[in-house]
Amino acid sequence: MTPDRLSLTFAALADPTRRAILARLALGKATVTELAKPFPMSGPAVAKHLRVLERAGLILRGREAQWRPSELEARPLKDAVDWLEGYRPFWEASFDRLETYLSELQMKESKNGRRKKR
Amino acid sequence: MTPDRLSLTFAALADPTRRAILARLALGKATVTELAKPFPMSGPAVAKHLRVLERAGLILRGREAQWRPSELEARPLKDAVDWLEGYRPFWEASFDRLETYLSELQMKESKNGRRKKR
Repeated sequence: MTPDRLSLTFAALADPTRRAILARLALGKATVTELAKPFPMSGPAVAKHLRVLERAGLILRGREAQWRPSELEARPLKDAVDWLEGYRPFWEASFDRLETYLSELQMKESKNGRRKKR
Repeated sequence: MTPDRLSLTFAALADPTRRAILARLALGKATVTELAKPFPMSGPAVAKHLRVLERAGLILRGREAQWRPSELEARPLKDAVDWLEGYRPFWEASFDRLETYLSELQMKESKNGRRKKR
């Protein structure tokens, strides 16, 4: 079974090195050698990450066999955000509950504090 | 190496069944049996997906051994959105380029159309 596009996107993002590669490409095109520089890993290991990103449509690669510079292609990230945004009411509600809880806790503690001072 | 939280979140979302489970839980708490119903898969297969979601902090599970209803916990999704939003300028630019290209194409075609009519 071929994974659906959204699953491919999320799977490609589920790795800190691949996210760092995308962050580097946000600054401009780069070759495998340039991309490999900041990482304690071999060129082939970086090349493997690039294939995952390419398969997910998150990078475009040049045709020049020698260099094949990679370029960021951010469009699939929009679909990921669109999917996630459906859950915004839930995380906002959960932060609201946390805030209510914390302010209740604070109120309780300041009451206790006043009681102790008397 | 334990994966970082963001990688755990993205990995958990990289599966259509797990995303469907979250969509079901957005309607309210549910047991494994209830969650398994719409899927052509065994209870244990669904339970495995629930463990992935639980490990990523995307669901909370009740203590009652028999039922253990699952509940949506959307907070980790906010961090995912925050990370993705950093790339918004890039996908917007890429859609702008596409729009420019398409309107240029349309203009060209309507010019050709007028030429043919004469």
